[in-house]
Amino acid sequence: MNARTAEHSRTVMTDLVLPSETNPLNNLFGGELLARMDRAASISARRHSRRIVVTASVNHVAFNKAVPLGSVVTVEAKVSRAFKTSMEIFIDVWVEDRESGNRSKANEAIYTFVAVDETGTPVAIPELIPETDLEKERFAAALRRKQLSLLLAGKIKPNDATELKALFE
Amino acid sequence: MNARTAEHSRTVMTDLVLPSETNPLNNLFGGELLARMDRAASISARRHSRRIVVTASVNHVAFNKAVPLGSVVTVEAKVSRAFKTSMEIFIDVWVEDRESGNRSKANEAIYTFVAVDETGTPVAIPELIPETDLEKERFAAALRRKQLSLLLAGKIKPNDATELKALFE
Amino acid sequence: MNARTAEHSRTVMTDLVLPSETNPLNNLFGGELLARMDRAASISARRHSRRIVVTASVNHVAFNKAVPLGSVVTVEAKVSRAFKTSMEIFIDVWVEDRESGNRSKANEAIYTFVAVDETGTPVAIPELIPETDLEKERFAAALRRKQLSLLLAGKIKPNDATELKALFE
Amino acid sequence: MNARTAEHSRTVMTDLVLPSETNPLNNLFGGELLARMDRAASISARRHSRRIVVTASVNHVAFNKAVPLGSVVTVEAKVSRAFKTSMEIFIDVWVEDRESGNRSKANEAIYTFVAVDETGTPVAIPELIPETDLEKERFAAALRRKQLSLLLAGKIKPNDATELKALFE
Amino acid sequence: MNARTAEHSRTVMTDLVLPSETNPLNNLFGGELLARMDRAASISARRHSRRIVVTASVNHVAFNKAVPLGSVVTVEAKVSRAFKTSMEIFIDVWVEDRESGNRSKANEAIYTFVAVDETGTPVAIPELIPETDLEKERFAAALRRKQLSLLLAGKIKPNDATELKALFE
Amino acid sequence: MNARTAEHSRTVMTDLVLPSETNPLNNLFGGELLARMDRAASISARRHSRRIVVTASVNHVAFNKAVPLGSVVTVEAKVSRAFKTSMEIFIDVWVEDRESGNRSKANEAIYTFVAVDETGTPVAIPELIPETDLEKERFAAALRRKQLSLLLAGKIKPNDATELKALFE
Repeated sequence: MNARTAEHSRTVMTDLVLPSETNPLNNLFGGELLARMDRAASISARRHSRRIVVTASVNHVAFNKAVPLGSVVTVEAKVSRAFKTSMEIFIDVWVEDRESGNRSKANEAIYTFVAVDETGTPVAIPELIPETDLEKERFAAALRRKQLSLLLAGKIKPNDATELKALFE
Repeated sequence: MNARTAEHSRTVMTDLVLPSETNPLNNLFGGELLARMDRAASISARRHSRRIVVTASVNHVAFNKAVPLGSVVTVEAKVSRAFKTSMEIFIDVWVEDRESGNRSKANEAIYTFVAVDETGTPVAIPELIPETDLEKERFAAALRRKQLSLLLAGKIKPNDATELKALFE
Repeated sequence: MNARTAEHSRTVMTDLVLPSETNPLNNLFGGELLARMDRAASISARRHSRRIVVTASVNHVAFNKAVPLGSVVTVEAKVSRAFKTSMEIFIDVWVEDRESGNRSKANEAIYTFVAVDETGTPVAIPELIPETDLEKERFAAALRRKQLSLLLAGKIKPNDATELKALFE
Repeated sequence: MNARTAEHSRTVMTDLVLPSETNPLNNLFGGELLARMDRAASISARRHSRRIVVTASVNHVAFNKAVPLGSVVTVEAKVSRAFKTSMEIFIDVWVEDRESGNRSKANEAIYTFVAVDETGTPVAIPELIPETDLEKERFAAALRRKQLSLLLAGKIKPNDATELKALFE
Repeated sequence: MNARTAEHSRTVMTDLVLPSETNPLNNLFGGELLARMDRAASISARRHSRRIVVTASVNHVAFNKAVPLGSVVTVEAKVSRAFKTSMEIFIDVWVEDRESGNRSKANEAIYTFVAVDETGTPVAIPELIPETDLEKERFAAALRRKQLSLLLAGKIKPNDATELKALFE
Repeated sequence: MNARTAEHSRTVMTDLVLPSETNPLNNLFGGELLARMDRAASISARRHSRRIVVTASVNHVAFNKAVPLGSVVTVEAKVSRAFKTSMEIFIDVWVEDRESGNRSKANEAIYTFVAVDETGTPVAIPELIPETDLEKERFAAALRRKQLSLLLAGKIKPNDATELKALFE
């Protein structure tokens, strides 16, 4: 089971914002964006693991920028770190201005997926090789996030979250 | 602007899991559940604030339990704490077994919504009054979560996150 | 097979009216409301019977009140009477005014479902115990409605519809 | 405003049953069929009146025959009688067997629509001219159904429902 | 396997243009119309062959006329010629003006379907009998189109496309 | 109005095949693929022109390869040639095998879009600069296709289709 690069799992999902996905201000519902990101992230996780994958968790997501009806939205997902049977996927969301052609960052999100076999049992997956500076930074941060996640779930104690604890010292 | 109880904003959304919402294991896509929870939470936030509301963020969500095709899923949302213009909404998700009639907890999630006027500008909202023990516990924890969120967004420094810092001492 | 209360089957489905469900006057299509009520009623029938259930009929439904785009609509279904293998489900539909927070009755409807096994054969179901005055009133009326239905289908003769005939005397 | 024939409003909607519209027995949801019939009937009402039309009511509908996934379903709607501002539409539903090519009747339903102007106010519509025997029979029965509807809504008294009362004498 | 008339396969699909199917000019997306035509054509092909059918190709389609939100669109499909295992289906699309009741031609398209068995293997189908002048004209043209299609796919040489070559002489 | 490269308009839409999009053989409906390609092509045309764009036509499309339920499908669109107000967009469709990770070509298609202003009037667009060999080849062929299209529409005479006529000499 050979390690794979982050680039190998890169998944790009560009699509329009349709009327059935917008709220009373004519902006994309947060929930619809969460669903699109989940689909893109699942494809990325599947490309890395070549397995059936299921969503294990989604990290804190902030919606800082409204995405209006008719926008072109690009969701780009890449595996940021592989653990034993789970993967963290980092997702960047871009919105384009039609007239200027400029793309601006609308959101980012982090999902975790688990690779499973046909019976739903977790299976081992290849390691991830980060290459660019950004990929390396996200790879390193993934470990801190995993500790925070275990801490919040009560599965490890605060003092064992060494990466995280260092933030407060 | 009178304070309102948590119960006042309680929103129940019971529905079936349809074939168009399931993954290759015939379980509800994580992303679809995120979208349903967003709609339920938005109604809860609107009931509390009587304003147009937009998703500001979603906290860490773990998907511990698969929700099979044909299940009856109940999403229950209540405002857990109101801040100046934003509200934290706590969401519990239940799945029912058809034959025994038993309901089991499938998920929980925490979304934050902001109340806005027709131009999208944030507006002040009523306070929330927690009544039950669970509502009070969630009300207290909401402040810690807000600090964590500000900390992760780089808007406050670790040492100012007093509620959170206490966890590590 | 123990009798169950009407409350036991109570199903609440609160959701938004989305743009894809509205007519040229920007109101919810009658047909979409019929479909939502069918889903809520089927869940209620399933909760009472713990069986697969299929729609057998829908009674006369009047649409007296338009439900505008963006509304919060609550569909509430409860079994009103159980017969041998079929159940009558009474559905109340409420619409909320965002600014005042008032709920007003938008519709009511009555569906009949049959409980079936995996081959589609009807199976016996528990009795229903009405508790509140409204539940008792609907329980009594259910028999008249069943007679009317059999009469209109030509399965009984006018003079055998004793409950119904009494109305004209 | 010239009278129009029933044939003039005939609307045929043939389509497949898709996986997203089926229940756990892989048959078309009753609610989905109600929604399709509502769309076909609304087009028929619009063809007769050349106005915006809104669903006023749906008569008792019985679901006698399951419609399996992948079926070809034909919904055929025609105005059966025009009143001052409202129309009764009669809908026949057919299902085809792929291998034999036979069509069999799956359902029938009766919807009432009201013609309105852009403000939602009811407006007068042309009369309907029934031509075939079946159209004439449905035209006559429409008056009885209207009386039953008014009676059930408490808008006329049993003794004024002359057409209906005659059934019991 | 008896030959069947073109009329035998006539499929009419009348439906509304809904908000979720329109572009920023509030007109039906070309792609949505292509999808509707594919469903209508597949039903027509199935009626002729009484087999499972799959889309083999779609000919050049021009979108000459915008179809606005809320329009009534009628897609009418008929088999225009049957080959050994494939059929050409000719599709006419009409749009109605609500106020005048006039229908105007919005589009036409030509799809080819192949009849297959449960394993996806092509199977022989009945011949088509054209009856009206238009059906006969389309039947004749179908052969020229088939040659053009084979030519463009590189499966025959320009000089073997006798019907087509004659156009340039 | 500066010329733009083909790469500038490249649009990648990777997504799953969902159950609501599949036919009785559990493969993606041809019509659904046509709709996805239309959305991707429209985004590509918009990126090149920075205008509202509407589908003008779709060239002959052959469906040579079935795309099964659960597949990952990548639709990639690039403007292949810009004319005065219209653009030809070339679309490649790829399907991935989950276990081997191999991508194979499933389809290609050619759509034409017109750039319009808010009133729907066609507007001039920038020229396209092809860079790679494949882009140059498609750029050259686009002129032949345009002539064929005009010829089939009866807008030019066979002898004026110089590029096309050469094929038969």
